[in-house]
Amino acid sequence: MAQPPEVVNLGSKFARVGELWSPRIVAEFNGLHVKLARGQGEFVWHTHEDTDELFWIQSGSVEIQMRDRPAVRMAAGDLFVVPAGVEHRPVVEDECELLLIEPADTPNTGDVATATQEEWI
Amino acid sequence: MAQPPEVVNLGSKFARVGELWSPRIVAEFNGLHVKLARGQGEFVWHTHEDTDELFWIQSGSVEIQMRDRPAVRMAAGDLFVVPAGVEHRPVVEDECELLLIEPADTPNTGDVATATQEEWI
Repeated sequence: MAQPPEVVNLGSKFARVGELWSPRIVAEFNGLHVKLARGQGEFVWHTHEDTDELFWIQSGSVEIQMRDRPAVRMAAGDLFVVPAGVEHRPVVEDECELLLIEPADTPNTGDVATATQEEWI
Repeated sequence: MAQPPEVVNLGSKFARVGELWSPRIVAEFNGLHVKLARGQGEFVWHTHEDTDELFWIQSGSVEIQMRDRPAVRMAAGDLFVVPAGVEHRPVVEDECELLLIEPADTPNTGDVATATQEEWI
């Protein structure tokens, strides 16, 4: 459900993201959701067939592994786009805070059956 | 023109944005461009009729003035969405670095006749 536009402070919002790998929605624009997540360890391999996924790192670091190309390493202040159709998984050594942008209702695991319920914070 | 996906370090890219109010493109996803800009002083009043515009502040502060509602103030780490059709202008007291996301080919002034040519960096 859309929320009225308000100024969103990312630091304050990240402080409210508890569970690992459970993105929370903080803004919506042009049918896309801006989501914040905490990651630690390996997420599942998955694919978003029809949508690119933007990652931006607030703190910590993450390796984005991709089946068909070399992995990339991201640290705070880095941004990367996983193209649609590319199977990928984030792997985090030290806990990281990351921002994602993708179309509203995109399942985080690529599959609605296993996806995390995503709520606004 | 689209560029191949690569890790984009925002700090390094901001260092390459020279001219004020001249956004430079750093990434593309789902038909949207991620752009970096430096602002100082007042930008022109303008409207994007068909698209929301996401602002995120890297450094400095900015007031987003809107014709039909109260202005909002944003500082580093803040994110705000100007809804489609809302006439607005950013006003910056101290120089700020800001990130914008909007559909590729959206003119920064709302009008192709006066828009800044936008290049990748």
